[in-house]
Amino acid sequence: MNAPLPDSIRPIRFEDGTLFLLDQRRLPQAQLENAYRGAAEVATAIRDMVVRGAPAIGITAAFGVVLACQEARDQGVPHWRTAVDVALDRLAASRPTAVNLFWALDRMRAVLDRCTGADEAVTASLAAAHRMLADDIEANRRMGAAGAELIESGRAVLTHCNTGSLATGGFGTALGVIRSAWAKGRIQGVFADETRPWLQGARLTAWELVQDGIPVQLLCEGAAASLLRSGKVSWVVVGADRIAANGDTANKIGTYGLAILAREHGVRFMVAAPVSTIDYETPDGAGIPIEMRPPSEVLDLAGQRVAAEGAGGWNPAFDVTPARLIDALVTEHGVVMHPDRQALAALRARIETR
Amino acid sequence: MNAPLPDSIRPIRFEDGTLFLLDQRRLPQAQLENAYRGAAEVATAIRDMVVRGAPAIGITAAFGVVLACQEARDQGVPHWRTAVDVALDRLAASRPTAVNLFWALDRMRAVLDRCTGADEAVTASLAAAHRMLADDIEANRRMGAAGAELIESGRAVLTHCNTGSLATGGFGTALGVIRSAWAKGRIQGVFADETRPWLQGARLTAWELVQDGIPVQLLCEGAAASLLRSGKVSWVVVGADRIAANGDTANKIGTYGLAILAREHGVRFMVAAPVSTIDYETPDGAGIPIEMRPPSEVLDLAGQRVAAEGAGGWNPAFDVTPARLIDALVTEHGVVMHPDRQALAALRARIETR
Repeated sequence: MNAPLPDSIRPIRFEDGTLFLLDQRRLPQAQLENAYRGAAEVATAIRDMVVRGAPAIGITAAFGVVLACQEARDQGVPHWRTAVDVALDRLAASRPTAVNLFWALDRMRAVLDRCTGADEAVTASLAAAHRMLADDIEANRRMGAAGAELIESGRAVLTHCNTGSLATGGFGTALGVIRSAWAKGRIQGVFADETRPWLQGARLTAWELVQDGIPVQLLCEGAAASLLRSGKVSWVVVGADRIAANGDTANKIGTYGLAILAREHGVRFMVAAPVSTIDYETPDGAGIPIEMRPPSEVLDLAGQRVAAEGAGGWNPAFDVTPARLIDALVTEHGVVMHPDRQALAALRARIETR
Repeated sequence: MNAPLPDSIRPIRFEDGTLFLLDQRRLPQAQLENAYRGAAEVATAIRDMVVRGAPAIGITAAFGVVLACQEARDQGVPHWRTAVDVALDRLAASRPTAVNLFWALDRMRAVLDRCTGADEAVTASLAAAHRMLADDIEANRRMGAAGAELIESGRAVLTHCNTGSLATGGFGTALGVIRSAWAKGRIQGVFADETRPWLQGARLTAWELVQDGIPVQLLCEGAAASLLRSGKVSWVVVGADRIAANGDTANKIGTYGLAILAREHGVRFMVAAPVSTIDYETPDGAGIPIEMRPPSEVLDLAGQRVAAEGAGGWNPAFDVTPARLIDALVTEHGVVMHPDRQALAALRARIETR
């Protein structure tokens, strides 16, 4: 069986000088696009999780730079680059953990360095941002095909958070692998962690899979150990927010525990991420900054206080999975089995000599 | 430091022929007692989780039997015991996993076997149910003292679900250990899993600890691996719904994963439960029935559908932790380190020869 690739969702689009973001806080109840014409508003949208997911954050920030260039041009400021640099700094401060944000801003900075005026900067940055978006979707399709090859037929997979079209330019990283595996008839269906406290699994992953006709069952994170013990699942497939040079991987809180539980039960563990997620400047996981988010995200539920007044909350947004627990790292430049410092250095060498 | 034992909450009381249950589905927003005068309504209340927690379910069912005896007496039915047996069966069918329910009903059946009429049955069953309630609180205080002795000073503990006054006659099992450890100055505070999907941690455990002035921080289950890695916690302390003869322990979904994560990080794992939780008829964990609850508990949030229509849910209410992952089983008859079949048999022999 080789069904057509299910791929119907695009969260980021740019038209007529305006950035449109599908507001992921409203899904699945409402499919609303917010329109942005200023870079500062884009930084706020990233911080407030209108858009989330490491690759999507990077692409959004790139379009935020385009908006900053437009603003500098329209306002006719004498030092256009100074104004744009303020916006770059603001975008960089929006979320600390995902490295794709900094990678995207570095790429945009390099584009701006070659421009002599605001007009040129608008044109060049827009072309670069569109290319980044298109490249991301193409990379995800390559990852999907490569990751699906690793999955033997007959069982389900378990995923965490949302790594789909909504977390990327389109198609998804881990969810791209799952889309490809489904199209090839390799998996019977998907188990998805609801992913507290933001419920990206319940709100976003389930919605994407239902949209594309892939059977999905949600579970609470606490049920994952029982699921992995049950034999229903052959692989845990997740994305990444930042991968250190030795393969240690920061991803949505809960991932590290899943990796331990998978190893305990003989279930394999796959990370799917574009090479822009690899941060060769960070030697290992201890160097990755972990965003602590407000306790209210744990103490409240659906906007209502649920915990007794006086209770505190401990709410790290990400955790770090050591490389030794990762069986396969799937990138658009190929699969790295048992990733470690040597294997990731070899991957970089392979890409650079291409 | 040896502060007075914090113990301010009682969820079950019986007065003037009426059973009053603190409605745990409304906490912490509202502290409301529901009144019951019929056994069938009590069975429904257990099923619908007005009251939950293995020991509390057992005690509630015992008072349910008292109500059945009252009904038989008041209706003047010719075969009072036949009528009461119908109620016993209905109460037994309310929840399948916690063995304290069946233990309590067996004890009440033995009391009824010695009665010759409905009047006598009312008096005898009421005395037995009150004794069960008082014994439970006394057992919890003994467990608390014994469990607290195991905890060295200076760090926090992590608990799961609610095992407090609300889950018992009063004081609690694992939360009783935590209350005692706090009074003795052994712990710096408590981390509590929010415990999806019912949020017993966020709604009930946090409320109990705040009521009694014990510092508590809530976390999502997905953050537990990071917490256990951080060194903040020396013990995970949980309760039990049923313990098989070999020490395998059924408890709230999420417990099994915590036990694996604790072992991985050198954090010790304690189960606190009265001996009525031990089911010597069930040889090991594979024989414990696991209640599957409705998918809607995962798909909805605060009464609103949150997942896309078309998504399924996988919602086991309990899991089984193998005995090998349990460092200490704390009962009212003493502590069993590294519980296994031999150690539990020795515990039973010790109790029976007392």
